[in-house]
Amino acid sequence: MAEPLKIVIVGGVAAGPKAAARARRLDPQAAITILEKGDYISYSACGLPFLISGEIPDVSHLLASPVGVMRDAGYFHDIKNIDFLTGKEVLAIDRAAKTVKVRDLASTREETYPYDKLVLATGALPIRPQVPGIDVENVFVIRQPRDGLAILAALEEHKPKRAALIGAGAIGLEVAEALVDWGVEVTVVEAMESVFPGLLDFEMGALLQRHLESKGIKVRVGEAATSFGSDDNGHLNRVYTSKGEFPAELAVVAIGVKPNVELAKAAGLALGETGALKVDGEMRTSDPDIYAGGDCVEAYHRLLQRPVVISSGQQANIQGRIIGTNLTGGHMVYRGMIGTAVAKVFDYTVGATGLSEAAARQAGFTVETVLGPGLDHAHYLPDALFIGLKMVADKATGRVLGVQVVGPGDGAKRLDVAAAAISLKATVEDFTQLNLGYSPPYSVAIDLLVTAAQVMQNKLTGVAHTLSPLEVQELTDKGGDFMLLDVRTPAEYRRERLKNPHAFAMPLGRLREKAKALPKDKLYIPFCQQSLRGYEAAKILEGLGFKNVKFMDGGVTHWPFELEQGAPGKE
Amino acid sequence: MAEPLKIVIVGGVAAGPKAAARARRLDPQAAITILEKGDYISYSACGLPFLISGEIPDVSHLLASPVGVMRDAGYFHDIKNIDFLTGKEVLAIDRAAKTVKVRDLASTREETYPYDKLVLATGALPIRPQVPGIDVENVFVIRQPRDGLAILAALEEHKPKRAALIGAGAIGLEVAEALVDWGVEVTVVEAMESVFPGLLDFEMGALLQRHLESKGIKVRVGEAATSFGSDDNGHLNRVYTSKGEFPAELAVVAIGVKPNVELAKAAGLALGETGALKVDGEMRTSDPDIYAGGDCVEAYHRLLQRPVVISSGQQANIQGRIIGTNLTGGHMVYRGMIGTAVAKVFDYTVGATGLSEAAARQAGFTVETVLGPGLDHAHYLPDALFIGLKMVADKATGRVLGVQVVGPGDGAKRLDVAAAAISLKATVEDFTQLNLGYSPPYSVAIDLLVTAAQVMQNKLTGVAHTLSPLEVQELTDKGGDFMLLDVRTPAEYRRERLKNPHAFAMPLGRLREKAKALPKDKLYIPFCQQSLRGYEAAKILEGLGFKNVKFMDGGVTHWPFELEQGAPGKE
Repeated sequence: MAEPLKIVIVGGVAAGPKAAARARRLDPQAAITILEKGDYISYSACGLPFLISGEIPDVSHLLASPVGVMRDAGYFHDIKNIDFLTGKEVLAIDRAAKTVKVRDLASTREETYPYDKLVLATGALPIRPQVPGIDVENVFVIRQPRDGLAILAALEEHKPKRAALIGAGAIGLEVAEALVDWGVEVTVVEAMESVFPGLLDFEMGALLQRHLESKGIKVRVGEAATSFGSDDNGHLNRVYTSKGEFPAELAVVAIGVKPNVELAKAAGLALGETGALKVDGEMRTSDPDIYAGGDCVEAYHRLLQRPVVISSGQQANIQGRIIGTNLTGGHMVYRGMIGTAVAKVFDYTVGATGLSEAAARQAGFTVETVLGPGLDHAHYLPDALFIGLKMVADKATGRVLGVQVVGPGDGAKRLDVAAAAISLKATVEDFTQLNLGYSPPYSVAIDLLVTAAQVMQNKLTGVAHTLSPLEVQELTDKGGDFMLLDVRTPAEYRRERLKNPHAFAMPLGRLREKAKALPKDKLYIPFCQQSLRGYEAAKILEGLGFKNVKFMDGGVTHWPFELEQGAPGKE
Repeated sequence: MAEPLKIVIVGGVAAGPKAAARARRLDPQAAITILEKGDYISYSACGLPFLISGEIPDVSHLLASPVGVMRDAGYFHDIKNIDFLTGKEVLAIDRAAKTVKVRDLASTREETYPYDKLVLATGALPIRPQVPGIDVENVFVIRQPRDGLAILAALEEHKPKRAALIGAGAIGLEVAEALVDWGVEVTVVEAMESVFPGLLDFEMGALLQRHLESKGIKVRVGEAATSFGSDDNGHLNRVYTSKGEFPAELAVVAIGVKPNVELAKAAGLALGETGALKVDGEMRTSDPDIYAGGDCVEAYHRLLQRPVVISSGQQANIQGRIIGTNLTGGHMVYRGMIGTAVAKVFDYTVGATGLSEAAARQAGFTVETVLGPGLDHAHYLPDALFIGLKMVADKATGRVLGVQVVGPGDGAKRLDVAAAAISLKATVEDFTQLNLGYSPPYSVAIDLLVTAAQVMQNKLTGVAHTLSPLEVQELTDKGGDFMLLDVRTPAEYRRERLKNPHAFAMPLGRLREKAKALPKDKLYIPFCQQSLRGYEAAKILEGLGFKNVKFMDGGVTHWPFELEQGAPGKE
């Protein structure tokens, strides 16, 4: 009988344990060792905000399996016959000798582990910007269980009144919500021009920002944190930004992560242009006996058709399974990702898949966009809630490039449907004919995702002519001569309306009659709450011989600028 | 200027109004007339169960648009410039003269409408089985608002104690739930062997049936209603079936619909083998000036690659849009459907997309199946609920043919993701690498849909060997020599376990040790709650040299036969 295959895996979260488990299933004889520097193994990093909020009463919940089994070293040994060793810092890889040099952190002894196949799953490290005061007390990053526990301890011990959240990405906003649960006044500082940057375009971020502000969070976008000030005890008391300053006794820096590649780099393994570890389709590094996966590698982006660095526990798991297969003689190829992300932020579901308009333009695509909000299920049943939705398509190929959702309705479903379809190279036409499940508690007959695709198709074929809210604002700023026709009902108008000098109430039911008095040469921009009636109005005006009509995409729902509530100043 | 195009549309629900609205958008000048026999127009038939339950307080809600605008004739006239005429029964089509003969039901006068293009959207009629007593009082069908109102009136007037629901499809079960809300004792009678027939395979139906029974509903599957008995007043008092009888004062027959094609047939238009109207890809009948869509036509099924008859308000809308486009000179092609259906039945979401195992086998596919239940989101957050899931794949092409969901968790999302992917011809491998949104409130890192695909891949490549619950029961019935190893924790075992003489408790943590005492030549069938640990156990036994090990798909969650609760009788 052949000598068992010696597999050594560096890193005990996501990709590492998954590769180990898969390898074990395919090779019952292999000797599999996982080396983890920290104390916690196989934890859910994405659960940390819920530890801080108290929704998870104890860190152990992040380590247990769904049926309550603790995934500790004993579990891996007894059930999976895998040696999962914690407190083991890997110092160096000797590729010629095929060994790794390890320091046992408890005993400080050095050890050597031989391998036939090595897996690097060293993950990523939170970025700590090297600004003055970054090391004062009560400034935290958030990445590992110990970070969550440290923030919890600071909340309990120091009872901060005000907190700063540096970085308005998913984890950052989830932590912001958790801090609000603690009664802390939270200011979010984001260097980019809108929240959820990179994933949401400006007007979608504006929708989320409005929700954050409605929950009492102060949002400072377009501002970078420049330093942290402290009191006489060395405790944080003030945050300074590129545009101002504000008091805060606790700060969490969540501006992203960088691939942890020092070990691989020192061993001479090739890095990609992104700075992350370069791997081939089978997740092999430049050394054929060394595989790598998870946040330390660059991953192929299916739409950009090049490697990118995006932190994803899900993709780490998928890559781990592929590595485990290939380690044991299989040939499975990683097909790539499309950057899908989702988060619950207070009452809103926020998510994006594929490319944002900004990202698509930057990558050289010629894009068309649709703002297509809608209800998540039949309006005549309780709790039907709106979803703000943006779709981005490639004019050249007709393919859908991305979908963003922001709102209280069930956007997670639409996001995943879009993610699946985009992964499978769906065109706009494919989306228009999706045979989704329809039942009043779950959807409307034509789902908003399908409606958005229909509008997109109308735009691409020249049937619908629109302006985006940003284009309307630009026209306004330029002092253009046009009328914004609010074709909603008077009741809707009284409740809330655009604050824009060109906007007038013009209920759809009276449009045919009232249009007679309007000069035909002007630019008219009808809109409604979501813009299906705006589209209707545009078609009515065109039918009446008006030549210059464009409806405003997304209506009042997606207007990212000021709104006016209550008794109207004009009509 | 050319004479406006005269478009006449027969039928005022779903496909008809949609075709009219689309045609109007593309041709502002066309003269568009909709002729509807009934009084209600453009209503949501799928909302009727919620009218009966009282969740919708008034039938008008089914007619309003999402923003509360009534879609009545005035609305169609004022906003859309469409003549929507109710109480108009179309008696005949004169294809040579290009006219339709109409009876105005109010005046009983006959009228003639000329057309350039005609659209038939005559829908489907509920099947009323011609059994004795079908016409006694308080036996209803459910299709139109008047049916819902009649059932409501009967509930209020006769206060029935017991009701029979004939047909356990989506609408039938939704109505059953509504009747339970009224305090009525409900018996469901279904001629097929399980509930939700055609959409759910037997073991998935069993899961739903267990839920129905837990809500106090009596379920009689494999029984056909043979007659309805009445008291001296001619009121229903008894239902007779092929296997027995039971008292009931109200009955709703919901055994399906048949395409309403009499008008088209009399006009000599071609019908398909299904008995429904035959149309080409552009939704044109055998007469090039007559289009048809909705429940009166047969629709192309993308997986079966042949026309089928499936009633769907959603597909009717999609077809209506295509018809409206083609009526006005466009060329849009209907790509077909895959039979997606979803319903909320008490606390469960129930749905199916693509082909069931039974349907796939009947169509000649060689299939592999997976029962892959899982939680809908992270177990450490509140309200994580299980979803029962079945996946069916084609062994020849590796394509996923169908997915079924039954359970309290958010199965609607997984169903729609599967529907999108299946529509786009996704393979099992495509499913294993879907980049879905991951965040603890919405999902687990590897969604159960992806996990099911991974298990499917393992089966197709010979890595995993399983038996379905049905195969295990068959072995039991045959008196086979095997052991069912329940590898769950003792606590899980005490709570609930299979009632099967071959089943023994064998906690996973002790399997390696206990396995030493087991003879190696026997067939072992490990299983757990969902069967990931069952798979683990199979791999442990194989690693120990056992040659005949297969884990049971779906575990206790999907066991469709008897379960035993509380203190175990043996261990």
